[in-house]
Amino acid sequence: MKPLLITVGEPAGIGPDCMIRAFNDAPEIFENAIIVAPACWLLQRADDIGIATPIQQLAKPEYSEATKGKLNCWNPLPDTVAYDQVSVGETSSKTATAVIQCIESAAHACLNGHASAMVTGPIEKAVLRDSGFKFPGHTEFLAHISRHGKSRANEKIDFVMMLASNDFRVALLTTHLALRDVPDVLSTQATVDSLRIVHHDIQSRFGIHKPRLGLCSLNPHAGEQGHFGHEEAEILEPAIHTARIEGMNVTGPWPADTIFSAPMRKDFDAIICCYHDQALIPIKALSFGEAVNITLGLPFIRTSVDHGTALARAGSDQVSYSSLVAAIHMARQMAENSAADFV
Amino acid sequence: MKPLLITVGEPAGIGPDCMIRAFNDAPEIFENAIIVAPACWLLQRADDIGIATPIQQLAKPEYSEATKGKLNCWNPLPDTVAYDQVSVGETSSKTATAVIQCIESAAHACLNGHASAMVTGPIEKAVLRDSGFKFPGHTEFLAHISRHGKSRANEKIDFVMMLASNDFRVALLTTHLALRDVPDVLSTQATVDSLRIVHHDIQSRFGIHKPRLGLCSLNPHAGEQGHFGHEEAEILEPAIHTARIEGMNVTGPWPADTIFSAPMRKDFDAIICCYHDQALIPIKALSFGEAVNITLGLPFIRTSVDHGTALARAGSDQVSYSSLVAAIHMARQMAENSAADFV
Repeated sequence: MKPLLITVGEPAGIGPDCMIRAFNDAPEIFENAIIVAPACWLLQRADDIGIATPIQQLAKPEYSEATKGKLNCWNPLPDTVAYDQVSVGETSSKTATAVIQCIESAAHACLNGHASAMVTGPIEKAVLRDSGFKFPGHTEFLAHISRHGKSRANEKIDFVMMLASNDFRVALLTTHLALRDVPDVLSTQATVDSLRIVHHDIQSRFGIHKPRLGLCSLNPHAGEQGHFGHEEAEILEPAIHTARIEGMNVTGPWPADTIFSAPMRKDFDAIICCYHDQALIPIKALSFGEAVNITLGLPFIRTSVDHGTALARAGSDQVSYSSLVAAIHMARQMAENSAADFV
Repeated sequence: MKPLLITVGEPAGIGPDCMIRAFNDAPEIFENAIIVAPACWLLQRADDIGIATPIQQLAKPEYSEATKGKLNCWNPLPDTVAYDQVSVGETSSKTATAVIQCIESAAHACLNGHASAMVTGPIEKAVLRDSGFKFPGHTEFLAHISRHGKSRANEKIDFVMMLASNDFRVALLTTHLALRDVPDVLSTQATVDSLRIVHHDIQSRFGIHKPRLGLCSLNPHAGEQGHFGHEEAEILEPAIHTARIEGMNVTGPWPADTIFSAPMRKDFDAIICCYHDQALIPIKALSFGEAVNITLGLPFIRTSVDHGTALARAGSDQVSYSSLVAAIHMARQMAENSAADFV
């Protein structure tokens, strides 16, 4: 299998700490994995935190027997991109372009078949945005790269953000926008598009033959028969109807406060949510530090840690790498399922 | 201490089952407690499910040594109100008025000092609404009764819906309305009013001297510095500022997906949420069947089960009374804290 690529994200944050500490405790996790970053980001942090680590820079994203037992980095940055001005805990516009290009290079390696999957570390969006990064986050950026610069036809939904723990999975119909804008962004067509992506990827990436999908309502009590909103009847129910005609096992719209209760959530392979916090509140409440962020609908596998850059803790010993390890394991498992699918 | 009053709610639902089964397993729970309902609602159900129960009808809501060891009912209904047309699992408009009047009588007994607290069983709102009940739920109805028919001055917030488990407590700035309407209903003044009620009642009803209150943001990532909405800066932050000047320990607005994570939620005595599902998703995900619904700001103590009428399970052996027991215990504990407060 082609190697797994891991981006560090913001070099001033806890991304490098997580890599070094995880490697130090369990180097086998990084077998056939390559970190897409200048090696100096890791060397400097390893030195800062006093953990001697066999870090090695590779010229290409290729893993071999010779690279075994090392924490391998591939620096994809051209000489024109500055990357060495990292102060622990202090973001800098000087490394913003390097952060973005590392992500882009990893994505291209996946698209070109040079990698089996990519795992992303946390970025500091405000800094990237000030440097011209025009995406709300990784998810939208990777979808954009996957379209090869083409814009979406008819605003068709072609990616879905998912979070998964060992306990359950949530997928989002809308992601990073004001709550006020959510009702008008929801549409039957976009919901059907999203359900198709979730259904397809749960089959192909998770090896579940007949995924059981539960769709959350937008309004409390599922709108209580139209007393608290009409989006259930006007948008979500027609989407479920269409999806069921296409053979998907979708039910709902369920009241969002009951579908996540212990007796109900186990009945679904994925719960599809109308907005960001509807999905992220329950998964972080139940599985904080264990949930993995996954982008569905891309032509490659991408998982991510579920935490931020935690700048204040960078370089300290108050860093947990459990989410990184979960994201690596999840990406590997998905790559194996996908490979099995093609046999 | 004056007795605790318990309303059955919808007589065709699982309310009567919960009372009978809880009494059968642990009669001591009903010591100094009186069910506000015609005894026939319980007698009929006890007969249906084959659990012989010493049910006794009282003329007044007064507990005495003579009533000990019985499941005591007080029927407050005038002769003009019909109540005996109950079919298990089938709601009927014929009992709607009786259901409403039982709740109203219990509330008046609390207001008049004849009871220490009230616990409410689940109602079937659609049936009550068709019979002219114009409130979204118990909470709003009890607040209305407490105003003695007066309307609210300047729309001032005078009650707050709270849910509490052993693990944590959530309070709501808005309750039963379409998600689309939430942003425009939120206001700084209403938020301050709600914070005052939560702060006061956490002190007086829960015996916590300096409550630690956390306010959730409306938008994902707390609006990410205004990129996804402005309600944090324009509404919530000014409310926190005012509350802190008044001496309250309020922090936020916190991203709603992180404040409910295990490491954060333990830092608060109450988490105040902008809308229904923001509060109910995490409490039901973490504490389903153990959470108690509490109305703060009323001149009396009111707790409620956190489940619905479950009509399809009424009269079956698939009924859990854990939430009823939790609501009774919570009401008692709050009554004791309140009494201690006046010493």
